[in-house]
Amino acid sequence: MSVADPVANLQALIRCPSVTPAEGGALTGLETMLKPLGFTVERMVASEPGMPDIENLYARIGTDGPHLMFAGHTDVVPPGDEASWSHPPFAAEIADGELFGRGAVDMKGGIACFVAAVARHIEQHGAPKGSISFLITGDEEGPAVNGTTKLLKWAAEKGERWDACLVGEPTNPDVLGDMIKIGRRGSVSGKVVVHGVQGHAAYPHLADNAVRGALSLASSLMDPPFDTGTPEFPASNLEVTTLDVGNPATNVVPEKATFAFNIRFNDTWTADTVKAEILRRLDAAAATNPLRPGRDSTRYEMTWADRPSHVFLTRNDALIGSLTASVKDITGKEPKLSTTGGTSDARFIKDYCPVVEFGLVGQTMHMVDERVAVADLETLTRIYGDFITRWFADAVIR
Amino acid sequence: MSVADPVANLQALIRCPSVTPAEGGALTGLETMLKPLGFTVERMVASEPGMPDIENLYARIGTDGPHLMFAGHTDVVPPGDEASWSHPPFAAEIADGELFGRGAVDMKGGIACFVAAVARHIEQHGAPKGSISFLITGDEEGPAVNGTTKLLKWAAEKGERWDACLVGEPTNPDVLGDMIKIGRRGSVSGKVVVHGVQGHAAYPHLADNAVRGALSLASSLMDPPFDTGTPEFPASNLEVTTLDVGNPATNVVPEKATFAFNIRFNDTWTADTVKAEILRRLDAAAATNPLRPGRDSTRYEMTWADRPSHVFLTRNDALIGSLTASVKDITGKEPKLSTTGGTSDARFIKDYCPVVEFGLVGQTMHMVDERVAVADLETLTRIYGDFITRWFADAVIR
Ligand SMILES: [Zn+2]
Ligand SMILES: [Zn+2]
Repeated sequence: MSVADPVANLQALIRCPSVTPAEGGALTGLETMLKPLGFTVERMVASEPGMPDIENLYARIGTDGPHLMFAGHTDVVPPGDEASWSHPPFAAEIADGELFGRGAVDMKGGIACFVAAVARHIEQHGAPKGSISFLITGDEEGPAVNGTTKLLKWAAEKGERWDACLVGEPTNPDVLGDMIKIGRRGSVSGKVVVHGVQGHAAYPHLADNAVRGALSLASSLMDPPFDTGTPEFPASNLEVTTLDVGNPATNVVPEKATFAFNIRFNDTWTADTVKAEILRRLDAAAATNPLRPGRDSTRYEMTWADRPSHVFLTRNDALIGSLTASVKDITGKEPKLSTTGGTSDARFIKDYCPVVEFGLVGQTMHMVDERVAVADLETLTRIYGDFITRWFADAVIR
Repeated sequence: MSVADPVANLQALIRCPSVTPAEGGALTGLETMLKPLGFTVERMVASEPGMPDIENLYARIGTDGPHLMFAGHTDVVPPGDEASWSHPPFAAEIADGELFGRGAVDMKGGIACFVAAVARHIEQHGAPKGSISFLITGDEEGPAVNGTTKLLKWAAEKGERWDACLVGEPTNPDVLGDMIKIGRRGSVSGKVVVHGVQGHAAYPHLADNAVRGALSLASSLMDPPFDTGTPEFPASNLEVTTLDVGNPATNVVPEKATFAFNIRFNDTWTADTVKAEILRRLDAAAATNPLRPGRDSTRYEMTWADRPSHVFLTRNDALIGSLTASVKDITGKEPKLSTTGGTSDARFIKDYCPVVEFGLVGQTMHMVDERVAVADLETLTRIYGDFITRWFADAVIR
């Protein structure tokens, strides 16, 4: 079995049940593919108190620059109800031209194709004119604490430097070639607890309905909009994702209301300035609330959830230009350069080198019957291969 | 044991565990007190499909007018955690001048005092110059379907007519003599379900956050105020008593939000006009929502909860005047004529005759260690007795 075949590579990886945080044999499988190609493979285990240890992998071929990194993850989200799958989630069965299994597109498929592309490149051209490395984590779908961030830091401390990175996440909404991601909005989440005074609905002056405070505070975060967008990014957008009181009694005025929000912000803001603006809005709404006329300022507590994701935009012609040209040549499509969508580990990598994302079609990711067209695996392998050749040619010429 | 002693009457009644819907012996106990005084006692059982049968009592002495009704209930709310009581809830123990037990103030105490007052009146003056009746239900604290409404209808169909009614609910906030209730605001409750479209927080244009609709609809009901009050009534007031989404995922835009509200409205409105105003506000907020710019009208469903309570105001000088004079004479206090507070069965009685409410101090009602000062029982008996004499004198003179 040659690792130049992305289908065989993907089947081998899917058959490793690497649901976060389990390694499940997936990194060992990848190591087995890379070593015969000439890669030096290192396994790095990251620990954090109160969290399971996570296995990660770093592999490099070549010792000089230019240095191209391929980044991704072998961990997958749980399969959910296995009985609902038309093919078992870890069997990697092929039916009607589609390969079924958890991780098929997110993103064992991307890894399988890049391995195949590198194998073919070495077959045709010999060792790359520089270095290629794989930076693969087992903690992308989980808390992402023991994953890409630590792996990057660990490698950088050993002296590793990269000139560009391609992340193999599924970026195409409908068809292979639709979309390259060149940046991501930032993301900040928080929770607000609003306090009032419990009482009887018949004696509202003795009570202070926490809902009145919560309605005003929550509304202030969604209106007016934070901005109208920038040339590269859509408008920042905040959604109050839940608001809960849980008071079953119609005649009771509740003393507490809680809401949570998430904002996806563009490069008008940094995580710090967007947080400051959120606090400013909350304070203003707490001080002047038409729903609580003549009352003291609404009492509330604000908790920021998780770590923020920072906004970034990659401006690197060699990287974006060669990937765009490869996608166009192989698929005949002009890929959209996009900054939409959720966050990815690219948000960590951008601190080390320019980073773009391109992979399979994401439609079935995280769903029952996650699957990939077998033809897409061959096409993506060819795109990746073309890109490797172009990028090194362009990087060496310069 | 003489029924002229309100303390003994109340102890007998408290020892009957008449938690709604159980009769618990309380109406039988009352019957035993009234028959020797010359009352004709009738027990009326009311039924409704899917609900427990409820025992009620109607007792009358005299055959002519003027006809004074005393109304109330022997059912009580559950005692809650009996271990938390310093004296068992159905033992009617006296300690430090206070009589402990469920129903002590709400409102077996009021009944005990009125029985004693009638007994003393008959002792001193002979049979009343007209008629006195007791209209006592076992379903005031419950759904109130098989209680006062049906009992009134049943009695009226037999030809019973009343000239005035005193309800013995605990009306005094702090001290006996504080407050007579001469009317009640109306009450309407409802529930609103707001529909949106679920989606990912990173793709808000593909979703329609139900919270955006709910915030706007809920706010529209609380701002601006419905009115500023009338000479006899405080301002109408609406409270959104809960708002719930229950979405645990920060990156998911929720498709559904639910809120409930209750309005206490004054005589600016009827139940029908206040409902129409609520619907008008909801429709306006659904159509024009700054939180959902450029979107279709918010989809929502409105459900009215229970039957509304209608607003009423008693204007009857003979009734209010004699009760006020009696309270003043016995306690030295000028009682406030109030329309504040929750609803009571007076809302049903007002369709048959003028009705006022006066009873004990309500501070411990529905609480653990519900209790009444023994001295208050004697004072209330004297107030009731003075009132009976005054009311008949005034009614007969006219
Ligand atoms: Zn992924
Ligand atoms: Zn009561």
